[in-house]
Amino acid sequence: MLTIKSRDRNYTVETCADLPAALSSVSRPARAHYLVDQALFQHYGPALADVAGQAVTLVATEEQKTYEQLTPIFLELLRRGLKRDGVLVVIGGGVLQDIGCFIASVLFRGLYWELIPTTLLAQADSCIGSKSSLNIGPYKNQLGTFCPPGRVLLTPAVLGTLPPDEIRSGLGEVIKLQLLNGAAGFEELMADLAGGPASLPPSLPSDLLAKWTMRSLAVKQPYIEADEFDRGIRNRLNYGHTFGHAYESATHFAIPHGIAVLLGILTATHLSVRLGLATPAHYVDLKHRLAPWHQPYGATLRQVELAAVFQAIKHDKKNTGDAVNCILTAGPGRMEKRAVDFQRDLAPSVTEFIQHELAG
Amino acid sequence: MLTIKSRDRNYTVETCADLPAALSSVSRPARAHYLVDQALFQHYGPALADVAGQAVTLVATEEQKTYEQLTPIFLELLRRGLKRDGVLVVIGGGVLQDIGCFIASVLFRGLYWELIPTTLLAQADSCIGSKSSLNIGPYKNQLGTFCPPGRVLLTPAVLGTLPPDEIRSGLGEVIKLQLLNGAAGFEELMADLAGGPASLPPSLPSDLLAKWTMRSLAVKQPYIEADEFDRGIRNRLNYGHTFGHAYESATHFAIPHGIAVLLGILTATHLSVRLGLATPAHYVDLKHRLAPWHQPYGATLRQVELAAVFQAIKHDKKNTGDAVNCILTAGPGRMEKRAVDFQRDLAPSVTEFIQHELAG
Repeated sequence: MLTIKSRDRNYTVETCADLPAALSSVSRPARAHYLVDQALFQHYGPALADVAGQAVTLVATEEQKTYEQLTPIFLELLRRGLKRDGVLVVIGGGVLQDIGCFIASVLFRGLYWELIPTTLLAQADSCIGSKSSLNIGPYKNQLGTFCPPGRVLLTPAVLGTLPPDEIRSGLGEVIKLQLLNGAAGFEELMADLAGGPASLPPSLPSDLLAKWTMRSLAVKQPYIEADEFDRGIRNRLNYGHTFGHAYESATHFAIPHGIAVLLGILTATHLSVRLGLATPAHYVDLKHRLAPWHQPYGATLRQVELAAVFQAIKHDKKNTGDAVNCILTAGPGRMEKRAVDFQRDLAPSVTEFIQHELAG
Repeated sequence: MLTIKSRDRNYTVETCADLPAALSSVSRPARAHYLVDQALFQHYGPALADVAGQAVTLVATEEQKTYEQLTPIFLELLRRGLKRDGVLVVIGGGVLQDIGCFIASVLFRGLYWELIPTTLLAQADSCIGSKSSLNIGPYKNQLGTFCPPGRVLLTPAVLGTLPPDEIRSGLGEVIKLQLLNGAAGFEELMADLAGGPASLPPSLPSDLLAKWTMRSLAVKQPYIEADEFDRGIRNRLNYGHTFGHAYESATHFAIPHGIAVLLGILTATHLSVRLGLATPAHYVDLKHRLAPWHQPYGATLRQVELAAVFQAIKHDKKNTGDAVNCILTAGPGRMEKRAVDFQRDLAPSVTEFIQHELAG
């Protein structure tokens, strides 16, 4: 069990045998209301049947994760009688977590909630750190809050039922965290994944994903504890995200988040070479090692209008003027934040990356 | 100047000569965007003209203060280019404060904001304490956040331009705070207000409202500093509010907030007598002394369906079961929180208060 330090309250990350075990471990079940990803009913219908009477079921899409689309969810929870001494239990991946965290942040000026993350991305990365993000109108991730759950209940067994792209999306963040951590962790991860995407569940040993889930959380924990509100060192967790978010947005979310982050990591590293921070050899090495993990979405990105990418980068909420704040790298474990001139450096590097580096 | 301690940041309450002085004192004006109560343009059009190009103007109604109605405001602020290093300047009364505070809480996961409160209620009470409340669908004040402004800029001169009911609404909270404080402050306030409602601005000396604004904030400050998140002692500031909120809601907000609070204070005191906590003499004394300040809204309340009042009380977000949490009183300066049985005590007392105590 991990205990994560947070301003509001410390919270725990506990491992449960499987989803039914996690459900029966929820606090104050008599007062619990549930937000559940509809996709889970395919594999876990019987287990979820017990809570279905107190559950709001959602389809986890980018469109659902909007300020506007939360209105009927608030109304349904209130109509069912959720009160301030209740518990909101959120079961799903990143989209469900964003929705549940935001609701818990603003309902009754703060509602106790617990999280059962069911994707690799949510288990290995987003479940700690207490962030939510919502879209509004054409603006992506501009709304959000910081509000940690009281408990995170991990269920590694659920990962065996995920589709391969979902696992690859999570691996994008797992790879990012090991790159942040330094060369040793990254090399060990690459060795464990040497079988390539073909080795993904059900053929990948399930304890391997559980191992890298805990290793990922261990890398992330000191960043979020030192800087919960993302004013300094925590920024480095955004390595690959300025570009990744833009790639998701410009392709209308045709690229899964973690895979867009991998493409964003390569872009940030390409830009780091342009700015004299990273060596060309590091970029080339990374490009070859990450290629199996973002295919075939590099081709998806090549087809997008560059103007759409640039517009999305300019709308990023991390920007504060004409320069764009990017996390750049000098190699594994050596990331730093820099304001990059858009016209002179960022646009040419992104253009070259998309038009030439992703070719065949 | 007051400095208010808060978890997020300490913040200041500063007094400015008038609204133009407050406007020119705003921080980082080049990056400021404004939310302005439309009613202010009647008296302060020229002063506000300078910021109108960066201002979203709102009509301060209960309908505007809803989750749903905030969407176009967020979109307009984003369209105009508000960024995370910007400042949101909120100019208006309680409704504008609720809207601005909520927006600042969730935009970019927290945006710096400053508040220029322009009603007596906002200046003397709500401007400190960092709360926001929003309605959603049929549910009143169920959403909200805690997010203090960086600075509160008081402009007592603005109070001279308010309509009498607006002043009386603010006086409701001023009276409540002095009742919380103890007999001495309450007696001094009653002496200052001996001229009755006819003495309100412009005939009331303007320095008297400024005096009671600062005296009110001085009473409120230790409560919110000791218990910013309303988990204990701060509850006492809700004296009169369980009933006051229900009276507002059941009359579709025909009764101004602070006047509903005065009626709620009398109800809570009436209930306190029933439960053996307050003496009948204290209730009768309070009833006669507060009567001039809630007339003619007692008559408004008498016309409402009791069922609507009871439904509103049951929906109050402070309730956690069948009992209703009320702040009761044993006299000035002696408030306490109790769970009151709805059927046995609360409903009979409220019925008697509305049907008999408000008669002629």
